[in-house]
Amino acid sequence: MNALQTAQKYTPGLHVICDLSSHNTGATSDAQLFQQKMNELLFRLQLQKLGEVYHQFENAGFTAVVCLTDSHISVHTWPEFGKVTFDVFLSNFRGVNDTKAQLIADELLNYFEAVEVSRTELKR
Amino acid sequence: MNALQTAQKYTPGLHVICDLSSHNTGATSDAQLFQQKMNELLFRLQLQKLGEVYHQFENAGFTAVVCLTDSHISVHTWPEFGKVTFDVFLSNFRGVNDTKAQLIADELLNYFEAVEVSRTELKR
Repeated sequence: MNALQTAQKYTPGLHVICDLSSHNTGATSDAQLFQQKMNELLFRLQLQKLGEVYHQFENAGFTAVVCLTDSHISVHTWPEFGKVTFDVFLSNFRGVNDTKAQLIADELLNYFEAVEVSRTELKR
Repeated sequence: MNALQTAQKYTPGLHVICDLSSHNTGATSDAQLFQQKMNELLFRLQLQKLGEVYHQFENAGFTAVVCLTDSHISVHTWPEFGKVTFDVFLSNFRGVNDTKAQLIADELLNYFEAVEVSRTELKR
């Protein structure tokens, strides 16, 4: 296989994108609590962080972006609207991670006690 | 309008997701150069950073995740495959940002001299 064929065959990975409603204001308001959850999850799945940004908005929600060797996870919460959006993109550069991406999405939906979920899976 | 109606009406924003091929290995390999481009763009569009992660892989591509008050931008490059994936998600919390999200995507496609573009726009 030549370089061009390899490039054409390379498919970066699976991107799972979820929008949901949540009535769990504890989960949607507390960046620090969420950071613990995320760290446990990444440790369990043996995913390696390159860096992260957690930002707690005052009397409101939070934004979390975790940069991984295998792409990224982002979470944005709006407890005042009972809304959360997140996306999990894991690349297949070091092995097929599709199942891990789906598992992280499932765990996050569970964490926020999600209702009215809109879930999109993009094979990139 | 009651709180529930407000929650149902709140639509977080536009997520522009692009996968592309690029033959410009200078652009796809150099995290620092890309960071300059991104900073100029954010300044021009008056978007406020909460934090950022730029990671230069050795003799390879880079990963950049920029966390904004209005959500996030992520970029992953694989110069060895001539591939780039990026996504731009801007929330409408402080005003409708759909045009800005599209403009950033256009600028990034131009920066990487993108060919074979797959572009998805998700209204979240």
